[in-house]
Amino acid sequence: MHLLLLLPLRRRCTNPIAPRIAHQSRFLVSTAGACSPLPRHLLSGIWGRCLSSHPSPIEDADEARCVAENVADALDVSYPTYMVWGSNTGVGKTLVSAGLCSAILRLSKCQGNSGAKDLLYLKPVQTGFPSDSDARYVYQEVSRVGRLHPEAISEGLFLCNHTLQVSPAVQISARAGASVPVQPQSAWNAGGLSSSLNGTGMKDFCSYESQLLQGVKSRNIPADGDVYGRAQLRNTLSRFTCKTMWAWYEPISPHLAAAREGSTVPDTMVVEAIQRSLQALSSSRKTSGHREDAGDCAEKWAILETAGGVASPGPSGSLQCDMYRSLRFSGLLVGDGRLGGISTTIAAYESLRSRGYDIPAIVIVDSGLSNEEPVLQYLRHKIPVVVLPPLPEDPNKRLEEWFRLAEGTFLELMNVLENSHSKRLRRLEEMPKMAGEILWWPFTQHDLVAQDSITLIDSRSGENFSVYKSGTPSTGKTIATQFDACASWWTQGPDSILQPEIAREVAYTAGRYGHVMFPENVHEPALRCAEILLAGAGRGWAERVFFSDNGSTAIEVAIKMAFRKYIVDHGLSDPSTIERRGGQLKVVALKGSYHGDTLGAMEAQAPSAYTGFKQQPWHVGRGFFLEPPTVFQRQGRWHLQLPRVFHDSDSSDSASSGWKSRDEIFDICRDSTPLANLYIRSINQQLAAAVREENNVPAALIIEPVMHGAGGMDMIDPLYQRMLVRECRRRGIPTIFDEVLSGCWRFGVESAVDLLGCSPDIACYSKLLSGGLVPLAATLATQAVFEAFRGISKLDALLHGHSYTAHAVGCASAVVSLQYFSDPSKNSNLLPGGRRLRELWKPELVSLISSHQSVERVVSVGTIFALELRANAAESGYASMLSKELVENLRQEGIYTRPLGNVVYLMCGPLTQPKTCTTMLEKLLALLG
Amino acid sequence: MHLLLLLPLRRRCTNPIAPRIAHQSRFLVSTAGACSPLPRHLLSGIWGRCLSSHPSPIEDADEARCVAENVADALDVSYPTYMVWGSNTGVGKTLVSAGLCSAILRLSKCQGNSGAKDLLYLKPVQTGFPSDSDARYVYQEVSRVGRLHPEAISEGLFLCNHTLQVSPAVQISARAGASVPVQPQSAWNAGGLSSSLNGTGMKDFCSYESQLLQGVKSRNIPADGDVYGRAQLRNTLSRFTCKTMWAWYEPISPHLAAAREGSTVPDTMVVEAIQRSLQALSSSRKTSGHREDAGDCAEKWAILETAGGVASPGPSGSLQCDMYRSLRFSGLLVGDGRLGGISTTIAAYESLRSRGYDIPAIVIVDSGLSNEEPVLQYLRHKIPVVVLPPLPEDPNKRLEEWFRLAEGTFLELMNVLENSHSKRLRRLEEMPKMAGEILWWPFTQHDLVAQDSITLIDSRSGENFSVYKSGTPSTGKTIATQFDACASWWTQGPDSILQPEIAREVAYTAGRYGHVMFPENVHEPALRCAEILLAGAGRGWAERVFFSDNGSTAIEVAIKMAFRKYIVDHGLSDPSTIERRGGQLKVVALKGSYHGDTLGAMEAQAPSAYTGFKQQPWHVGRGFFLEPPTVFQRQGRWHLQLPRVFHDSDSSDSASSGWKSRDEIFDICRDSTPLANLYIRSINQQLAAAVREENNVPAALIIEPVMHGAGGMDMIDPLYQRMLVRECRRRGIPTIFDEVLSGCWRFGVESAVDLLGCSPDIACYSKLLSGGLVPLAATLATQAVFEAFRGISKLDALLHGHSYTAHAVGCASAVVSLQYFSDPSKNSNLLPGGRRLRELWKPELVSLISSHQSVERVVSVGTIFALELRANAAESGYASMLSKELVENLRQEGIYTRPLGNVVYLMCGPLTQPKTCTTMLEKLLALLG
Repeated sequence: MHLLLLLPLRRRCTNPIAPRIAHQSRFLVSTAGACSPLPRHLLSGIWGRCLSSHPSPIEDADEARCVAENVADALDVSYPTYMVWGSNTGVGKTLVSAGLCSAILRLSKCQGNSGAKDLLYLKPVQTGFPSDSDARYVYQEVSRVGRLHPEAISEGLFLCNHTLQVSPAVQISARAGASVPVQPQSAWNAGGLSSSLNGTGMKDFCSYESQLLQGVKSRNIPADGDVYGRAQLRNTLSRFTCKTMWAWYEPISPHLAAAREGSTVPDTMVVEAIQRSLQALSSSRKTSGHREDAGDCAEKWAILETAGGVASPGPSGSLQCDMYRSLRFSGLLVGDGRLGGISTTIAAYESLRSRGYDIPAIVIVDSGLSNEEPVLQYLRHKIPVVVLPPLPEDPNKRLEEWFRLAEGTFLELMNVLENSHSKRLRRLEEMPKMAGEILWWPFTQHDLVAQDSITLIDSRSGENFSVYKSGTPSTGKTIATQFDACASWWTQGPDSILQPEIAREVAYTAGRYGHVMFPENVHEPALRCAEILLAGAGRGWAERVFFSDNGSTAIEVAIKMAFRKYIVDHGLSDPSTIERRGGQLKVVALKGSYHGDTLGAMEAQAPSAYTGFKQQPWHVGRGFFLEPPTVFQRQGRWHLQLPRVFHDSDSSDSASSGWKSRDEIFDICRDSTPLANLYIRSINQQLAAAVREENNVPAALIIEPVMHGAGGMDMIDPLYQRMLVRECRRRGIPTIFDEVLSGCWRFGVESAVDLLGCSPDIACYSKLLSGGLVPLAATLATQAVFEAFRGISKLDALLHGHSYTAHAVGCASAVVSLQYFSDPSKNSNLLPGGRRLRELWKPELVSLISSHQSVERVVSVGTIFALELRANAAESGYASMLSKELVENLRQEGIYTRPLGNVVYLMCGPLTQPKTCTTMLEKLLALLG
Repeated sequence: MHLLLLLPLRRRCTNPIAPRIAHQSRFLVSTAGACSPLPRHLLSGIWGRCLSSHPSPIEDADEARCVAENVADALDVSYPTYMVWGSNTGVGKTLVSAGLCSAILRLSKCQGNSGAKDLLYLKPVQTGFPSDSDARYVYQEVSRVGRLHPEAISEGLFLCNHTLQVSPAVQISARAGASVPVQPQSAWNAGGLSSSLNGTGMKDFCSYESQLLQGVKSRNIPADGDVYGRAQLRNTLSRFTCKTMWAWYEPISPHLAAAREGSTVPDTMVVEAIQRSLQALSSSRKTSGHREDAGDCAEKWAILETAGGVASPGPSGSLQCDMYRSLRFSGLLVGDGRLGGISTTIAAYESLRSRGYDIPAIVIVDSGLSNEEPVLQYLRHKIPVVVLPPLPEDPNKRLEEWFRLAEGTFLELMNVLENSHSKRLRRLEEMPKMAGEILWWPFTQHDLVAQDSITLIDSRSGENFSVYKSGTPSTGKTIATQFDACASWWTQGPDSILQPEIAREVAYTAGRYGHVMFPENVHEPALRCAEILLAGAGRGWAERVFFSDNGSTAIEVAIKMAFRKYIVDHGLSDPSTIERRGGQLKVVALKGSYHGDTLGAMEAQAPSAYTGFKQQPWHVGRGFFLEPPTVFQRQGRWHLQLPRVFHDSDSSDSASSGWKSRDEIFDICRDSTPLANLYIRSINQQLAAAVREENNVPAALIIEPVMHGAGGMDMIDPLYQRMLVRECRRRGIPTIFDEVLSGCWRFGVESAVDLLGCSPDIACYSKLLSGGLVPLAATLATQAVFEAFRGISKLDALLHGHSYTAHAVGCASAVVSLQYFSDPSKNSNLLPGGRRLRELWKPELVSLISSHQSVERVVSVGTIFALELRANAAESGYASMLSKELVENLRQEGIYTRPLGNVVYLMCGPLTQPKTCTTMLEKLLALLG
């Protein structure tokens, strides 16, 4: 048995030459500025002789030195990556990491030909450095075990330990010699808490040490250790890379150390650097072939150790469980075996879970209290709790013995994690196939959906999907990020801060109420939601809130309300009055508008692709459907398009020759233009003609204010809608605003009332109402509408309702979301005054796109940008496939869209940063080009 | 200034005479069996002279000795009651309790005439006793402060400290002298882990000590301390009662101590004992008048200190946060100021919140790490974090000084808690009024709802509501428990264990997915839910799952599916084929059935109270509506009621003369009886006649299998429904089962298919589908139905969908619930085989009720029991008010029902214990009496 030689070395981070061996084994730091070589000396050799001064066989040693600038948007999930979380500080995360890393690097029954493994251990954030270095501890422990058990590491094991960046305090302490404590309140903090304007205040440290251990099978590692040039040998060595990414001096919480030592790191930088490190791991040794399908054995592993407890702040002050959320790696929770540890373990587990983390195992260092038993009971044995032996009372003395005792347990733990990863991969692989076989998607011709075009959404974080891609052997199995640019069908509003806040509020509400009965009852979430709606969207006109489940039901309720109001106002309570004339109650609606999928809502829709006999055998279309003038942008200018019905009149005089900006279109001054008169005349003529001809009664006006959504993102001239409301009101016809799309900030205002400049009698809200979590709808009404249902009999009441009416979870989600959207301290998009969002779509880019040759027209308002692709008649419409390629390309670029025929739109949330919208427009423009 | 005399005394718990003063001040224990008097001696008097040996002026000293047998179901919320929770053990809960109690007892600006306060400090569960006694610590600390500051306690303060029951180990250690440690593994554990069969294994301890402190205003407390007989004086004294309810010897987690010491206490016993203690507090000094409206000052307070951390197990092993949940007291969380404490504080807070607790403040003992800052940031400053001064390094020495330093902070903390309580009360008071003003309830004639009849539901725990009652000055403001016997309109299934489990799963799902797009996509909760539905309710026939939001939309989708299937099968894709004949597609449905409130669903309903012109101006009723035979129980026997249409035939021969049990009715052997032939003839005659007369096409059969719900809980003869399905299938008419009510174990089976013995082509699930949390619906279909929508064009697809289709939160809630209901290890109601629930409604009681003179008929199946009150024609039907009195009486008895006209029903969940159902039936029977 050979005990291999140790090679602590360091090299210049930006140049993998000139490695030196350091003075001392304790720690290697740059003391003479950034990354200059240290004097070369042989190590004193407590671990063995120095084998070589050659650089490490890891080609990617530099990759993670600095912050990523171009992070690929896909995480490789071919191999297991686990975060090690602690239920508190001091529960043994590092011991677990060390034991686990040792177990991973051991040979097992499922080792392949080479048996070589690549293992990355990352400590993104370290405090108390350098006296505390978890990476170094793990590095040392693994090397110790490796030396003891060369039979377990096959050909050999190359180990290295990097430290990338440190705070100035660490640098000073390092210069002074690592063993000399440096007071945190000294010179480097003179500049206060902020780091320099140009950066994070962190300094390159670039410490590097490495070793090569020979395994039992290794006969061909040369005495001089020159493995660097031998490709074959490189592929047979296991490799273990430890990295500390950022380190601070004081042994306190990272946010505090960062503040005190005047150097911090933004969350995005941490996340991106982790991604880059993992990419390096993914791309290493590609030639050795992927073995992710070879049973339950992984060739590569990554272990990331967090700092402190699950909700301990990172350097920026964000809680770590939030900071790492976009990565959503599976986690291993290190529980607490001590007194009180049951509680902290369970609470930590719940905090991780409520952020959407998967935790396939908990590990607890035994303290003789059997804490695992109640934890297992709580978990209902869904995941295992692995128990490690009690620590010796004097840890320094007998930890080797402890590791020996725990060896089998760590192997077991590794198996649990490996199996969990394999199981997850298998499920990810089978899901699209299963979906194609048993799901029935709405609005989808299944025959047109190939299995490989099914999008597997693994999670969402704020506005982004995480999408699994099975990929090819060369690309690997990945989870990629896509911006949810269909706002998951117009429902989404939260960013990555609001999403967990909603999750917590919903957990509270589910815990407090579940669901409770509503009629004749009251509960806080429903009442609060109603108050907020009346003070917000209903401000100034609405006085009653009726809850239901979705836009369609909200519309059906609204129509019932409007008809009753009309019946009562016009003395038509006896249906025979109308029926004798052979007529019936009808809605006034606009051609191209869409109000939902249930039959009642469909009746308010003019004939369309959705209303054919095959779709809606009962559909009649009980409306007077007027064709409205539309507005749109083309060649940078806004234009008005008057339908033919107006061409008969003196429309040429009235029509505008276009506008430079959208604001002009919404200007209330247009009420006194000739066009307004033209609209009024046309409306009156059409209504009068319809009533005369059909003997029917127009008893409700229903419109989608400002824009027809599902109809193809057609923006209606707001002047026309305003005049229509006015004329209907004059005739005593109640007005319904279908704000299912427009409401709750979707159009950049709380309600389209703020854009149109007139209010309805009834309005419907849904989609974004609940902040985008669960179905919820509200129909708001004036008190006058409500009065029409009062009476002495229950039969006069509005006999419509759904079981989950005003369900607590939806109302609570709505309350937290609506408050958040309209709070200037939380929503940076709010303009002063708090009534309007700033422009999210950069006008210059919108103008450019509207000038593109393949673009027919463009509209944008609030969170919506839409373009219609130029098409001949055969290619346009709802069933058009014209946009297919563009949509696919956008998805490739990380933008998930779903077209409406040849209309492609991007939809963000009220909290989305304008720069994100700009990036999307730029990508779109490039793809059009 | 008088320093008052100390009176440690004890008395017999069951008899408030013969008080004695103990040998020593350290602790008073019974050493000679249960509750026998100790020798009387004067105390050595480190706190002052002994004033009196009279019993305490607390009249209710005995009330909490033993476990409550008849616990009132209402908690008094007139005064503040707070639980003190710890984010870990050893974070200072007891110090906080002591400081807070001292602050509460101090005079403040808002003291009334007497200035007297009643404060109860409860330590329900204590381990490490007697050397650790938090109650005793608080008692001593408050008395110390009181002696130091007589000016702050007005007339005077009476303090006492009880210990009620202890484990045998404590008893032995007490006999041996409290200072002698007793090994936990000794004799009393000989009996193993279980306590004696007849009880908990706990022993009466009945230790009692008390003191009387004179305040600065007190001039009239006699030197002999005889305050007991002086009513006036009693009312001017503040009173502070400390109680340890159950104590164990070992300083470990209660569940472990309970196991090791062979004595435990069930959760319900703990909860009931707390309620009883609080009732005693509520009823004390009623004469001094309630002052809950007198600004923000409370005369009474209760502080309950938990053991260990929030999720530390109680004696039974239940986590404390779960164990105390039905009480849902507001909480004060003691955070952790140490390293790692940010994480444990936030995690503990989240664990409490996810169980529905309100936590109006967090308090942290400073450790110099400013842990409060990130905690405040996390909380977004919604609640305050109160910071206490750092503890001295040697706590024994300088804690007095610490309390002095913290005095102001504790007063502030008390104000925070007092204000929070007042704010809560004010909101509770205003909510019913607000509700009446701005909400619009479904199915409710608002003019018939008096403000005082509005039910304010403060929370739910399992099957129970917690209902706020403003009450009268004599009853006080209370929160009472009511069994949710309308199962919140037929949606509820969870018990108090499943509810938090759903809440956690939903938090995870909201954190992981929020909501994500469904068409052409797949995500785990939707796929899993579909798999479970197909393996459960759809077993053997369904192959596709279409998601929507509620029963109505599921039905509209089902009708569209059925019609398309019919159209395709019968070559009717061109509507003109039918229209030329002046006909249209119609459903076959049963009179009295109800399929939802949207117009499409309503069209499948025969004319009813819900379909009138005022309600549904567009309703036509597009169905062939057949009148079905019904079955019901009366006078203990099941009867068949044949409608008139059958009377024309030879029904007299066919009709059964009744059945002894429901099982006979569902017996498949009835298929070969003459009655079956009668049914078949009648069905065919009616269908043929309808088609002939109206030229219309019966293209779908839709039924509520087994029972018409909203129609009045009418049970349909299953033989008839089975024959109807058979005949329609023979004619190529697709069958829809509306399982919105019947599905998901509501009828005691996963699907009514298991009762009827025949399967549909399409079935709809909602309500209980999501376990009763949020709206979710699924329409299941055979592959043949799905095939009818395949084609080359999108226009052939099913163009129906809602934005939140297959929303992750609902699907996840469904997955956890459906799995739970059908898991024999969790659902004790499952009969062997797992396909059926045991009988929940005791047949004897059902029979008795069915024989009652005021009862017309009774039906019961699965979780439903219903009775129809005997009424003349004018009083019956949906608008009937006949049941009003019975319903009100049931609510008074803690059973929340909502009638369907003169039909009153009780509905429980699949997990409800039969004994609960029995209790409800007994109360119902008594009220009918």
